[in-house]
Order: sequence, then structure tokens, then C-alpha cells
Amino acid sequence: MTVRIAVAGASGYAGGELLRLLLGHPDVEIGALTANSSAGDALLKHQPHLLPLADRRLQDTTAETLKGHDVVFLALPHGHSAALAEQLGDDTVVVDCGADHRLTSADDWTRWYGGEHAGTWPYGLPELPGQRERLVGARRVAVPGCYPTVSSLALAPAVDLIEDEVVVVAVSGTSGAGKSLKPNLLGSEVMGSASAYGVGGAHRHTPEISQNLSAAAGRPISVSFTPVLAPMSRGILATCTARLEDDGANVREVYEKAYADEPFVHLLPEGFWPATNAVLGSNAVQLQVTVDPDLGRLVVVAAVDNLAKGTAGAAVQCMNLALGLPETSGLSTVGVAP
Amino acid sequence: MTVRIAVAGASGYAGGELLRLLLGHPDVEIGALTANSSAGDALLKHQPHLLPLADRRLQDTTAETLKGHDVVFLALPHGHSAALAEQLGDDTVVVDCGADHRLTSADDWTRWYGGEHAGTWPYGLPELPGQRERLVGARRVAVPGCYPTVSSLALAPAVDLIEDEVVVVAVSGTSGAGKSLKPNLLGSEVMGSASAYGVGGAHRHTPEISQNLSAAAGRPISVSFTPVLAPMSRGILATCTARLEDDGANVREVYEKAYADEPFVHLLPEGFWPATNAVLGSNAVQLQVTVDPDLGRLVVVAAVDNLAKGTAGAAVQCMNLALGLPETSGLSTVGVAP
Amino acid sequence: MTVRIAVAGASGYAGGELLRLLLGHPDVEIGALTANSSAGDALLKHQPHLLPLADRRLQDTTAETLKGHDVVFLALPHGHSAALAEQLGDDTVVVDCGADHRLTSADDWTRWYGGEHAGTWPYGLPELPGQRERLVGARRVAVPGCYPTVSSLALAPAVDLIEDEVVVVAVSGTSGAGKSLKPNLLGSEVMGSASAYGVGGAHRHTPEISQNLSAAAGRPISVSFTPVLAPMSRGILATCTARLEDDGANVREVYEKAYADEPFVHLLPEGFWPATNAVLGSNAVQLQVTVDPDLGRLVVVAAVDNLAKGTAGAAVQCMNLALGLPETSGLSTVGVAP
Amino acid sequence: MTVRIAVAGASGYAGGELLRLLLGHPDVEIGALTANSSAGDALLKHQPHLLPLADRRLQDTTAETLKGHDVVFLALPHGHSAALAEQLGDDTVVVDCGADHRLTSADDWTRWYGGEHAGTWPYGLPELPGQRERLVGARRVAVPGCYPTVSSLALAPAVDLIEDEVVVVAVSGTSGAGKSLKPNLLGSEVMGSASAYGVGGAHRHTPEISQNLSAAAGRPISVSFTPVLAPMSRGILATCTARLEDDGANVREVYEKAYADEPFVHLLPEGFWPATNAVLGSNAVQLQVTVDPDLGRLVVVAAVDNLAKGTAGAAVQCMNLALGLPETSGLSTVGVAP
Repeated sequence: MTVRIAVAGASGYAGGELLRLLLGHPDVEIGALTANSSAGDALLKHQPHLLPLADRRLQDTTAETLKGHDVVFLALPHGHSAALAEQLGDDTVVVDCGADHRLTSADDWTRWYGGEHAGTWPYGLPELPGQRERLVGARRVAVPGCYPTVSSLALAPAVDLIEDEVVVVAVSGTSGAGKSLKPNLLGSEVMGSASAYGVGGAHRHTPEISQNLSAAAGRPISVSFTPVLAPMSRGILATCTARLEDDGANVREVYEKAYADEPFVHLLPEGFWPATNAVLGSNAVQLQVTVDPDLGRLVVVAAVDNLAKGTAGAAVQCMNLALGLPETSGLSTVGVAP
Repeated sequence: MTVRIAVAGASGYAGGELLRLLLGHPDVEIGALTANSSAGDALLKHQPHLLPLADRRLQDTTAETLKGHDVVFLALPHGHSAALAEQLGDDTVVVDCGADHRLTSADDWTRWYGGEHAGTWPYGLPELPGQRERLVGARRVAVPGCYPTVSSLALAPAVDLIEDEVVVVAVSGTSGAGKSLKPNLLGSEVMGSASAYGVGGAHRHTPEISQNLSAAAGRPISVSFTPVLAPMSRGILATCTARLEDDGANVREVYEKAYADEPFVHLLPEGFWPATNAVLGSNAVQLQVTVDPDLGRLVVVAAVDNLAKGTAGAAVQCMNLALGLPETSGLSTVGVAP
Repeated sequence: MTVRIAVAGASGYAGGELLRLLLGHPDVEIGALTANSSAGDALLKHQPHLLPLADRRLQDTTAETLKGHDVVFLALPHGHSAALAEQLGDDTVVVDCGADHRLTSADDWTRWYGGEHAGTWPYGLPELPGQRERLVGARRVAVPGCYPTVSSLALAPAVDLIEDEVVVVAVSGTSGAGKSLKPNLLGSEVMGSASAYGVGGAHRHTPEISQNLSAAAGRPISVSFTPVLAPMSRGILATCTARLEDDGANVREVYEKAYADEPFVHLLPEGFWPATNAVLGSNAVQLQVTVDPDLGRLVVVAAVDNLAKGTAGAAVQCMNLALGLPETSGLSTVGVAP
Repeated sequence: MTVRIAVAGASGYAGGELLRLLLGHPDVEIGALTANSSAGDALLKHQPHLLPLADRRLQDTTAETLKGHDVVFLALPHGHSAALAEQLGDDTVVVDCGADHRLTSADDWTRWYGGEHAGTWPYGLPELPGQRERLVGARRVAVPGCYPTVSSLALAPAVDLIEDEVVVVAVSGTSGAGKSLKPNLLGSEVMGSASAYGVGGAHRHTPEISQNLSAAAGRPISVSFTPVLAPMSRGILATCTARLEDDGANVREVYEKAYADEPFVHLLPEGFWPATNAVLGSNAVQLQVTVDPDLGRLVVVAAVDNLAKGTAGAAVQCMNLALGLPETSGLSTVGVAP
């Protein structure tokens, strides 16, 4: 079986990572690659690391170009996927790396993104309770945000053990902000500097984390979320903490059980702590859990590659599930380190 | 007035930063420079950025070498300062950058550091309530830890507004770990990677933060503290959050009042957020405060240079207070950026 | 004596560094700060590290705004300084950090920059033979390019010992490219990556290096120059090599003599090699020289901060000379490390 | 066919990269993993990115442990491979990532490494003229040094066009120095800094580059080589320049022809320049060539991942050749960027 795929938004970081992974997928053939302002350019100008595609050019992002592929990956700013997907029809699996179809609440969508909600698609985090079965055979997938991926996986197993409020501070590399030409993303500003943004519950990933944890808990879980930009290209390290309802004696056991059969979520042995370079380029999530005995708080630290498992890796994993391929095809748990 | 100073531990990062600042202090003459295993070396071997001291050699760290200076700065591992200070007598102002004399509780000392407590010295964070007056004319000063400096300044003004538990996640550059030859501090491991350590209340700065906030509050404040190592040499960005008792409407006003007259603590204008490179090499602390309206939580973000205001700058500031010099002599609020 | 200065181009990296240094200059009062597209903004938006100027706003860059200052620093793209300087008149010392007036040959100017040459001003590298005396009392100064500064200082003492062709490969931090919003300058692209640009003699600093060395030699010296971008904000490390005419036995002696009395150029002791962080933020140049015995080649390695001695520090040094102030006022040879 | 391999020196950077690549090789089964001082440790302690080997422990490096594998990779300090290889016998393919068997001249060995030369093995750079055929079916392979790999590939095609002396300045990430606990390799010292080392022909890779180019030229080629350490974990960017014998009009054509059929060496299209992140984790070498028209010099810029094609990737490529597997098995030309 050969799956013919297209990538819309192939000039950006998510698009580049999709292609990097898909080039290593045994069952995939790479079709159309599209962009907006960069249409017409050689792909190599934007993705100099993708040598096997050195002869490719970027086309315009239109339904015509994208039609006729088995799978279309959308790596576009939010607001564009619903119309494109409709034109592509149900013959095509559409995997959306953008935010359009992640939230279940239309009110939340309007509050956080503005405009009308385009509807909810199966949520591409198969490791959350009940999600994997919704992805098998799906024709539409909403790939989670990078912060919600790591935060939800870090806390979901514990929802029955903790109070209703969690605090997440997540340190991220700069590629999470995309290839945006903003002064604060220039290398000269980023290197040697850490800074917070979207503070005080202002980041759009906040309702998505809350949605995931609340669904897992069966009750509302509120989230204090602060993202911090650190001088690295990739990687998120999330520190997630919540008050425990009891003494937390069985915390480790709960996490061991939750992820025992998951191919990509690894609870590290005791004494080991996650570092983002250990998951660089891989689809793995590394976790460690502990209890602060003086405060009765659970502390979970989790590392993920924001572009891989945080975006493009999850997209490939969901494609595998949607098409009935082995879930781990084309994906690795081996990081590129040091 | 010329103040003759000595630095014990001049081969390390704190010692180097002390000398960098003291070279620019108008009233200081630099005397003995000592080290342990590096005694006998040219200072330039360890501090190649201190060209005006290029002809200096490191001597052994002994009371004999350190005697006869007006001020002795100790930048040593904990456990060494009490004996040295006793031999130096009260003619000499001793400013200890180590941990020996920071904690007021002997029990806390024994729990966190082991062994017998060497006693408590005036605490070198003049911006905390009641501390400045204890430092004026002091003969002994305990310079705070870098994390407690930034965390305490971030939260102390709010202690009457918040509940009894705070959560601090602080991203730090690697120089905070000193010039230790450990694999996880190698450039190859650090660059491109973020990692947490001392998780779950295991970092020794935890009781010091709690001590400061509890003293400011007049009631026990407990601290969930997680330090995160980021790929930069200097700087700490602390995200500090706590549940508010009320709606937090006057939070900004409280902080404005608290730091209105402080030369080194700057509440940024609304809409600006701290970044560590903005304080690199400076004695400034940059703060921003906000309220998460959905959760009723205060969120304070603060940036400091761990080696400057976090260690050596505070030491110089305290020397100025101890000797009756202008508090800001030799110190700057201008960072080296980008 | 108080010197009132203005900075045109105060929102950029060179402008920010000028202000950082001038804030520490004992005889300077900071007047108008101007910009182009950022006029009207709070300075703090662009220079968050300059807290003492937190209440300043950027004005439009016009002769009217800049008039009436003792010294005007121009940190503008090339092509703008001649007209501004003419309007300012000879009452004002104009120190141009741009390229307009560096080259002596109008043909070179037209070839490398295009358009008509605006004329040559005294060249702001006082350590080159014969330059310091031209700067004393000057009303106009052309501050050298950052690469020519370090390359010329690295090789000028040796021009009588070497053949007529030199090879320079200089590794630079990204701030040398300015605050330009180009994809290849984004942090995500820069971190973890080294790349060359302007290869094959295509960089505009090539004729300036050649001009300096040829002037020092009294014969044409040709320059193979390759700049390399490295993942750091500041600093240039130049590796400069040339075939020796003889065995090079007296190379070290020649350099020692050349720079014995220079306050900012330091030949390191034997066995020490320059590193850019040792000069970060300082006006120092660190040099080391050796001879490759198998090839009979001189190899000089030199480190400089491109924004400090490479631009803004040189500008302040030249202002000092122009006004008859001590040459080292407001400048330091102490780097900010680690 | 399943090839059972062992890695001696599995705790270091080269060992880790060998395992990362071999985990993705379709025909390889990973056997014994050995170390010296780390024997007995969990592999995960030293290689936290190799999750599929999370249950492995390091054994002692002895011939007994290594025997019985089809291929043994040695990632050891120089001086250890000859004795081990002798004990392993000719049933085992031994691929040595160390320096012991690279040089053909025993005198060169003694001069640069000291002690007696252990003999010369087939040289693992199949892209050099005449090397590939020596590697097919070989039982012993000497993997080249990282700098010689990139420098030789950059210049070998041009040896008939240039004079007898080349100048190479190569910027390297810190992993090339291995996991050595030296102060100058600490993250705090490395980040934000560039520095040269082994200047003046003092680096041991100098004779190896010269050997390769001289062999390709059929006449002695001398090499001025300067390595520069830059703040990145991986990657080498080499700037290689030499005087042309003629006008260089056919330079591009010569390189196109030389590498037309090579799977791993890519001459970039005109207008593109190599960057090290484009080859991160890949076995590709990216090259660009130009002629400096004013000087008549060839300038070649080449990028390689020092741990991949510069060490472990070359080792796997040579194993493939030795065993008659497809040369590209388990290797990729896709970099991990940004």
C-alpha cells in the first residue's frame, strides 16, 4: 500500500517537519507541496535540510492542487482548514495541524480565536482516554497544540488524585512560534535570553489543556498556564503541578499503569529527569513524576519535541491510525542528542 | 575613601563577577585574590575577561592572606565561611556569597545542608521589608541565593493579597551551577536542551524563599519551587503564581508602591514583559504582574542576572550599605543586550 | 565639561550599544534619540535593557531634531549621513557608524555600494599607524566596519613580514547583521547552525580591510575574506593568516611593540587564545599570534565585540579623541563573562 | 541477513550516535555495549535519548565481551584498537572510529600522536578517489577524523586546479571534543563564545587532511588548518580556500562531475550556501564552490554533522560496504532542522 500525501504550508516549520518524517515513512509517496507567499519557490530555499526533495517547487495552496491525494496535511494559520477540507471531500483524509477544529466549545473558540467556530474534529492525541478509537478510520483529524500535548499527557493520569486547579509552566524553543518575522524572534534577541509571554491565562492553548483534563476527569479542571521562550530551536519542558487529594503514595503506580502500553509516552525510571534534547526529532514524550512531601503537591515534568510529537509526529501517528497502518510507522522514539 | 577588598574563591563564576563589578567601583582597590586547587595560577587562566588584572596570581585561601583588607568577599562552597570570618575579626567586613548564614532556623539548616548551623547573619536583600536598616553598618552579610532573590522580590509585596501557598518555576542559565565539571553541564548537553532538577521541593533554595515570604507575611507561606536549566550562561526568569484572596484589583498599585523608591527593582510598564538579556550584567530586577481572571491567581514574572543582582551585585550593594557608601556605587541598571 | 549627544538610529543594535556605553560615560548627557519607522515609540520597546532611559520616546530622524548637540552619532543604513552632516554644520561633531565615509577610493565605493561616493572622513581606528592624530579634534569621524576593525588590528603590525595576500575567516555573532527581519536571522534558524555568507570576496568589508592593510604596508595587500555566522548574539573571532617572508622568528616581538601602549589592544600571554565572551561588552581586542612552522605562515587570532569595539565602543573612543577627553572615558577592557 | 554488532565506548558521543543510527538500520541487531569507567551503569544514564535501549547496561570493554559479533565498532581514545582487533580475529569486521589506523606514514603517527604506529587500515571515506573499492569486503576500517572528512571532500575534486597550499578554517560544535570534563567545554563558557584552538598547524587532523589531498593530487599538498569552537552541539562548517592555477572557469563543472553519483555529497545549486543545521543528524555533506575573482582563489564551503557523516555515519556507511549491504542502508540525507 502506498499512500500519496500532500502538504499545505510546506514552507514553514511544521510543514518541513512533516516532510522530514514522511520521507522516512515506508508507505508514503510525497505529492503536492504548497505555500502561500512562497509559491513558485524551490522548496530547498525554505527547507534546505530536505535534500531528497531538492528538485521540488512550491505550488499555490488551492483545493485543486491538493485534490487526488490520499492524505492532505494542513500546516496553515487558523481559519483556512474548514473550507479546504470541504472541497477535498471525504475521499481524502485531512489532518489539520492548525487550531480550527480542536476545541469542542464554540463559545471557547469565539472567545479565544474570534469569529465563528468551524466545528470539532477527532482530536489527535490517541494517548488520552477514549481518543484512539475515534481516530481509527477517521477522515478528519485535529492535531493538538504542542503545549496541550505535553501538558495533557503529563497530567491526565492524575486527574482523580488532584484538586481542580493545575499550574503549568512550559519552557519552549522558538520554532513553536513559527517562521514569523518578529523582532523578538530574531536570533540576536533570543540567544542568551528567557522570557514569558501570554501570561495570566492569555495563551490560546489554555482552554485546550483545560478541555483535555476536564474530559479525562469528568469534572472541570482549571489551568494556570504560562509559556516561557528559551534559547533553543525545539523542545518543550513542562513543569506541571497540582495539589493532591491524598498523600500521593500511589502516584507512580498510576502513571506506570496509564502508559504501560503506549509506544511513545515513557515514564522514566526513578532518579532520571526529562531533558528536551533527549526527545529532539523523536515522537517520544519523556515523563517523570514526584510528590512534594511538604506541600502535598504532585509535580510532573515532561519533555517533548514541539515540532515532532508536538505537531508533525502526532499528525503522522494520526494518519497511521486513520489509515489502519501500524501506529508507529515512520516514527521513532530515538532522539538526536547531544 | 578607598576600600581595600579581597576575594576568596576568585577562580569561580561568582568570584569573577565580583571582580568585574569591583573593577568599576570608584572607591575600591583590589587586594588579595585567593582560590583552592587553582592557587598559584595566573588569574587570567580562569578569568580571561578581566584584562586589568592580567598580571595577578591566585593565592591560597587562608585567613593570613585575607587579613588586613577592609572587606573580604567569600565565594566559597558552604561550610567554610564561619571559621574564616572568626579569624578575620570585626575589623573586616565579611560578605559571604555562600549559604552558611542565610537561614534563621538551625533545624532548617541541618535538614537542607547537613551538619551544624553556623549562625545567621544580616540578610543581604535590602529591598525586603526591614532588611536595609540591618545592613547599614553591618560587619557580616549573608548574600541571598539567586533563586530566593528573584522569587522573594517577585512575591513579597503581595503576601497580604494571596493564600498561603505559592508556586515558583524558575528558568536559569547554567552559571548558577558554578564551574562544576559535571557531564550535564557540558556545552554539548546544555545547548538545545531544557531540563528540570531538584524537583518536588528538593532544591536547597526552597526554605530560603519560604523564610523570606513568611517573614514578610507574618505567617507561614509554603513554596512549591522547581528550577529549570535552560541553554544560556546567565539569567533567571521566574514565573511566580499564587491564588489571590480577593479579585486582585489593586495588585499593580501595591507593586508600584512597594518598589517606587528602589533603585534596582523595576516594575515594567503595562504590556512589557521581562527578558533575562535585558538585565544581563546589571543589578536590575525587572518585574511584571498580572491577574489571571479565570482563576483568580496572581502571576508575577521576574528577571534577574543570577551572577549580578543574584550574587555578586547584591554583594557589592551590601558592601556599600555596610560601609556607608552610596548604595548604587559600582552598580548599574543597564543590561548588556542583545 | 558636559557633552550633549544625540543618537540617530536609536532603535537598532548599534544605537542601543551607543546608549549603553554613553550612559556610563562621566561627561555625557543624552539628548535626542531618533528613529525612522519606530519614531513615536517608547525607547524601552526597542531597548528594554536601558532602564535609565525608560521614559524616553523616539523622535523622527531629522536635522532639526539632531541640531544643537555637541556630538551626533549616526547609526543609520548607508547613504544618509552626508546630507544630515551637512545640515548639522561644523559646530557639531558627527560620528558615523555607517559605511558612507570609510573608503578612500570613490571607485571602490561605487563598485561595492553603488551610487556616488559621499567623501572620506577621518577613519576611526586610532590604533592604525597615523590614524590617532587625525582623530584628535576631528569634526567628522567614519567608524570602521566590525570585520575591518578586528582584521586590520590583527594583521597591520605584520605587513612588513608577510607576502601580499592574506586570508581572513571571521566568525561573527548575529547582531552584526542588525535587527533585520530576515528568515535566516530568526533564532530557530540561527541556533545550532553555522553558515557562511558573502563568500568569494563578495562582502563589502573586503575593500575596507584591504585599504587598511595596504595603507599600513605602503603597497597593495589583497584580502580573501569569508564571514561565517555563528549562533551567538555578539562577538567576532577572526582567524587571519598569511605567508611569511622570513621564518617569523620576531613575530611576537613585533606585535608586542606595536600594541605596547594601546589601552584596548591586548596581545595575550603565550599559551592563551582569544575567545569572544572574554571581550563581550568591552572595548578590548584580544590577540594571539603564532607561526605555522611547516608552512611558514603567520596565524593571528583576534576577538572583538562587534557592537562595542567593533562599532559603538569605537565611536565613543573617537568622540573622546575628537573632543580632547581621555581616550578611554566611558570604555572598559573588562568583558562580561561567562 | 541480520548483522549482530557491538559498540565499545557506548557511553560517549560517538558511541551514542552509532547506536542512534544502528537502531534505524534494517539489518542490524544490537549486541554488547561496553565502556570503561561507566561499565555497570544503565546505558540510559549516558544516552537518555536511546529509549529503545532503556533496559541495557554497559559492560566492560574486553575482547571477551566483544567477541562473537559480526561487526565491532570501536569508539575509544587512540591507542586501544590494535590490540582489541587482534584478539577479535578476522571473523569480525572492526570499524575503528579512533585515529590509530588513519595515517599511512609511521613517522607522521609518531610525530602527531607519539608512540609506535599500529599500522594503516582501509580509510573510511569512500568518496575519495580509489577508496570505495578498498572498503568493499574489508575486515578492518579506519573511520576518518571529522575535520578531514569535510575538508578532504571540499577540496579533493580541485587538486588539479590549485596551487600546493590550502587554507582551511573549520567552525565546529563542541561534541567534536567528546564528553570531556574540561572547564572550556562547560556550557557556561561555550555559549555566546567562539574560540580557536590547535592554531598554527597544531591540530592532529592536519596531517590527515594533507595525506588525503596529497593522495588525490599525486603531489604534496600542504594545509594551513585552524579549528574554531562555536556555540553549538554539532556540526562543522569548513571554509576552504586555495589559489587557482588558472581562472577557475570550470570549477563548478569539476565538482558537479566529481560528486554526480555520490549519494551523500551534495553540491548545492548556485546561490545556496551550506549551513550546519541542514545536515544535523544526517549523513549528507553540503558543498558550495565559488571563485574570488579579484584574487584568483577557489573558495569552497562545506557543512557536515561531525558525529554523523563525520564519525558514526561514516562508520555505518563503511560497515555497509564491508558487508556488501546497500551503501546507504540506515543512513539519511535529511537533516533535523530547524
